[in-house]
Amino acid sequence: MGNVPAALKHCLSYEQLTRDYPWLAAWLQREKVRGAFIFPADSRNAITDLPKFVKIVEVGPRDGLQNEKEIVPTDVKIQFIDLLSKTGLPAIEATSFVSSKWVPQIAAGATEVAVFGSASETFSRKNINCSIEESMQRFEEVVRAAKELQIPVRGYVSCVLGCPYEGDIEPSKVTKVVKTLYGMGCYEISLGDTIGVGTPGSMARLLDSVKKEVPMSTLAVHCHDTYGQALANILVALQMGVSVVDSSVAGLGGCPYAKGASGNVSTEDVLYMLHGLGVETGVDLSKVMEAGDFICKALNRKTNSKVAQAKCRL
Amino acid sequence: MGNVPAALKHCLSYEQLTRDYPWLAAWLQREKVRGAFIFPADSRNAITDLPKFVKIVEVGPRDGLQNEKEIVPTDVKIQFIDLLSKTGLPAIEATSFVSSKWVPQIAAGATEVAVFGSASETFSRKNINCSIEESMQRFEEVVRAAKELQIPVRGYVSCVLGCPYEGDIEPSKVTKVVKTLYGMGCYEISLGDTIGVGTPGSMARLLDSVKKEVPMSTLAVHCHDTYGQALANILVALQMGVSVVDSSVAGLGGCPYAKGASGNVSTEDVLYMLHGLGVETGVDLSKVMEAGDFICKALNRKTNSKVAQAKCRL
Repeated sequence: MGNVPAALKHCLSYEQLTRDYPWLAAWLQREKVRGAFIFPADSRNAITDLPKFVKIVEVGPRDGLQNEKEIVPTDVKIQFIDLLSKTGLPAIEATSFVSSKWVPQIAAGATEVAVFGSASETFSRKNINCSIEESMQRFEEVVRAAKELQIPVRGYVSCVLGCPYEGDIEPSKVTKVVKTLYGMGCYEISLGDTIGVGTPGSMARLLDSVKKEVPMSTLAVHCHDTYGQALANILVALQMGVSVVDSSVAGLGGCPYAKGASGNVSTEDVLYMLHGLGVETGVDLSKVMEAGDFICKALNRKTNSKVAQAKCRL
Repeated sequence: MGNVPAALKHCLSYEQLTRDYPWLAAWLQREKVRGAFIFPADSRNAITDLPKFVKIVEVGPRDGLQNEKEIVPTDVKIQFIDLLSKTGLPAIEATSFVSSKWVPQIAAGATEVAVFGSASETFSRKNINCSIEESMQRFEEVVRAAKELQIPVRGYVSCVLGCPYEGDIEPSKVTKVVKTLYGMGCYEISLGDTIGVGTPGSMARLLDSVKKEVPMSTLAVHCHDTYGQALANILVALQMGVSVVDSSVAGLGGCPYAKGASGNVSTEDVLYMLHGLGVETGVDLSKVMEAGDFICKALNRKTNSKVAQAKCRL
């Protein structure tokens, strides 16, 4: 303000500055929320900007059980889903794969269907036996049929942070698939780190790319804990505005097509983190642990949830 | 700027504004670094503000081995430390507990000593058999003796996010102990989540409290993975400015005094995350995995590192 008299400079109050520079007001407001306006030294608190509520999508009964070695009798599966339904979980995936040839089945009482795409060309061919483009054409038919019946469709994208055959996957490739699924009308799109190789670094780069094309509110993250990174990856996704997290009770599952893939991140460990962060989920952790205990006994396996393991020892 | 002519308002350039309001410049600079100045929509990228370099303090040979059931013969331990010394790890803890009655031993060739305090009164009494205040008095003697010999002293604080006897521990209690250790001259203070109950939420609240009393650059985090939260807790600590992380190859160790405590977070998994975030460590992950493989065979146990498990299956 070289030309403004000194006396005048001191008249330039915070109110005046922010009135005349709306962009400045927005910044100051954000900094205020973070606590930085009052205490600049507190500005690096990374947990004040998280979603208030996170929707947990329980994938144990579908993605989890279909990838377990043991086959679960139907009555056990029903009992398992019944236990889960009493936990407060807002979404429990119990359905199976819907391919285009099953479109007529959609009318048979489904309340939601899902399509399973991939960000990796090779994985797509090996897993669903067609190219990414062909899969998108098929999904379009499913989504159209579902729309006519007002059935919501969830889109899945696998290998978003790496592929067992192709290695690293470019965020732009994932973004293209996500954009297509969003464009055809999927209400929610789940980004799957199928082989669990992602880190908070690759997750952030992916979301930076995807969010330019679809609203953050339509995205879910689906992390596998193969390299132990799942919770850190979920945390960074929440910090970037994602508010839907897929997880599997007791960490059930894995991926039969992905070499070295261990199970999904466990619902118990995700809940423990979210509740510790003050994020609401509406889910009762102890009831989820009961369901996890039930299914582990039925499968004769150890839980993959560290929270469940720790609480058992107490 | 009610009294400033409209024409003049437009003369107030960014340069002028920031020259006259240094606090504003600092903000704008920070926002610029985060990318928000150019692309406000990208401002929620949580990984652009991390330390460029993180110092890993390998605690496997000390904290790890002393809490394993199997006792390792000295020659195996030496071979283990030898392998670790070729990995690029900047700090390898090989020493044992130093209590005040061992002060004369300090002169016997130690290049660094450590004092082990607690944020929990009950844990302090059960673990080192004295009150927190008594322990601080004893440490003062150690630190004074070490200072005279120009030997740096590292301070440890246990139970910073919870105690097996007292439950939750107030951040203010931890801060008091940290401040005392810093005041007596510890060059680095390691915040230990001894029973691994912390979440990114409690970690952030703790650091918010501690950083008001000691510089962030003197703090290390020492996380156990009992509830699976270690990497997420470390991530949030890095986001808040911590740049020293304790970890243990193969996740060796645990805590014999803390019911339900499993091992330290594994060095391999921490390195995988940091390198994925583009954070430098100077450490060769594959060589760390070799050392982990060696010690697991010697101990006849499975590695606790998910990265090591995953890479074995490849």
